[in-house]
Amino acid sequence: MNSTSGDVMKKVVIVGELLIDMISEEYVDDLSEARVFRRYFAGSPGNLAVNLKSLNIEPVLLASVGNDSFGKGYLRWLKEKNIDTSFIRIADQPTSIVIISKSKDTPQFIPIRGADYLLELPEDPDSLFMKVAFLHLTSWPLSMKPARETAKILLKMAAKKDVKICLDPNFRELLWEKGHDGRAFLKEIMKSVYLAKPSLDDSFHIFGKGSPERYVELFHSYGVENVVLTLGAEGVLISNGRTSMHIPAFAKNVVDTTGAGDAFWSGLYYGLLQGFDVFDAAKLGNAAAAFRIEHEDKSVPLPEFSQLKIIAEMGMTS
Amino acid sequence: MNSTSGDVMKKVVIVGELLIDMISEEYVDDLSEARVFRRYFAGSPGNLAVNLKSLNIEPVLLASVGNDSFGKGYLRWLKEKNIDTSFIRIADQPTSIVIISKSKDTPQFIPIRGADYLLELPEDPDSLFMKVAFLHLTSWPLSMKPARETAKILLKMAAKKDVKICLDPNFRELLWEKGHDGRAFLKEIMKSVYLAKPSLDDSFHIFGKGSPERYVELFHSYGVENVVLTLGAEGVLISNGRTSMHIPAFAKNVVDTTGAGDAFWSGLYYGLLQGFDVFDAAKLGNAAAAFRIEHEDKSVPLPEFSQLKIIAEMGMTS
Repeated sequence: MNSTSGDVMKKVVIVGELLIDMISEEYVDDLSEARVFRRYFAGSPGNLAVNLKSLNIEPVLLASVGNDSFGKGYLRWLKEKNIDTSFIRIADQPTSIVIISKSKDTPQFIPIRGADYLLELPEDPDSLFMKVAFLHLTSWPLSMKPARETAKILLKMAAKKDVKICLDPNFRELLWEKGHDGRAFLKEIMKSVYLAKPSLDDSFHIFGKGSPERYVELFHSYGVENVVLTLGAEGVLISNGRTSMHIPAFAKNVVDTTGAGDAFWSGLYYGLLQGFDVFDAAKLGNAAAAFRIEHEDKSVPLPEFSQLKIIAEMGMTS
Repeated sequence: MNSTSGDVMKKVVIVGELLIDMISEEYVDDLSEARVFRRYFAGSPGNLAVNLKSLNIEPVLLASVGNDSFGKGYLRWLKEKNIDTSFIRIADQPTSIVIISKSKDTPQFIPIRGADYLLELPEDPDSLFMKVAFLHLTSWPLSMKPARETAKILLKMAAKKDVKICLDPNFRELLWEKGHDGRAFLKEIMKSVYLAKPSLDDSFHIFGKGSPERYVELFHSYGVENVVLTLGAEGVLISNGRTSMHIPAFAKNVVDTTGAGDAFWSGLYYGLLQGFDVFDAAKLGNAAAAFRIEHEDKSVPLPEFSQLKIIAEMGMTS
């Protein structure tokens, strides 16, 4: 696992939802009991962009926010982190919000979709793909039109330009346009996907009950080339369709798992952009996730490659 | 000013928006800076219903909430206050939310319209109007379809049934359907309005710059029978088109003006239902508003009639 960090890293185009998370301050059994909420700039694409930037990878964020204080605040926040916001559209709907309960079990949430699904192509779509190696796509833009139509065009463009497509298959029926078969649509998309990183939960929502091995098989069967299935405390199962590998979770001291998924993606992209195979890249992802899980303050930037590499090679965080 | 409280009071049908207000805990210059928000069950129709109930007037609330934790919580809150929720529809959109900054100047707000504008007629619309004297309408349902279509039918029904129409002309362009002339629509509605209670701000948003006297004239000119123009610290200007009267604000100690408008309506309705003329009824309204302004805890029920009457007759709160 050697870095070629002398070269200029290629970019990652991230297509997805910028959200305001309103998370209850109190632990509650039911979201309706929560009285006080804290506002976060969120949505995994936003977090991913910030993480990538801290690893010196240039994110190209294609997203929509509303023409309101939350949208303006979000853009300001990204700019403070030196992230290019030129492809972020100001749409004619409020910035999308998710109300979330803090819970020791599964958090409840209310998604209030607004600007996020009004995703449109930029005036010159080719300009998105300058020096780009990967197109990162979450399930949110696929769930509703016009974002879905935009995503479909981008998928075609990426394929033509040899940009590899990575999918966050975070499918939830609650988010999907009623009457549109989201599961069938995602399966159809999978044939052009270079890498998908599902969680067990994501897999369950798409395929129903199954074992980790079965889920990996299913993603491959629909055409996903590389599958990185995260297993929570059990680590991660990685498969390129010929070989598979299980690696344990590196975090020793679980403080808060929030943001672990986005951190994982960042380490993974770092590795892939260095030319690592999916197994070594996923180890870096696992290391970044472990770092995030062990830090309560989610605004701490990810450590640089050399440190992630140490975590990954030692297979533990300390 | 004598009460006929031995009789059973007639009801008030309230048509409008049930909202979740998320108000910033901190005072901020710009809403985008606010980090922590407190959740309130709000929307003036909800507050009005609670206030009326505390004065032993039965509110009939026609409204829509979402099939989510906020909607469920709102219904539970109304039920705890023994308010009939049978005409509140569970709609296929999230419960509407307004994000508001706490500010010493004019608060900023982001309205996130969802269930509130999906207002529909109940299966048996006549059942709404049993023993009803007034139909109370805010501008929110008029601002968007299908709520607007529902409101138009209710206005016609009310006119046929000799139910008097009271309008809260809280028009704001930001809330209105783009391309629909809200000002023209409100003016058209006014011909069937028995009583409107605008603030100076409302009047400005509908008619542009003007003096209080001119605003009263304008409301009358479009057909409003009785105008109760609230002037903030300057009290209230009341006109039945022939006579007008100015009464000063009764509050001596301004703690927080939140909820004053809804309290005013409640006292006003109480007076009108007792057969008072608009001047005496508005004095009770002014008394209820003063009570609300002097109490920081907005969940304190309004005092009963005898106490409001004392405040109104003394023209002061202590």
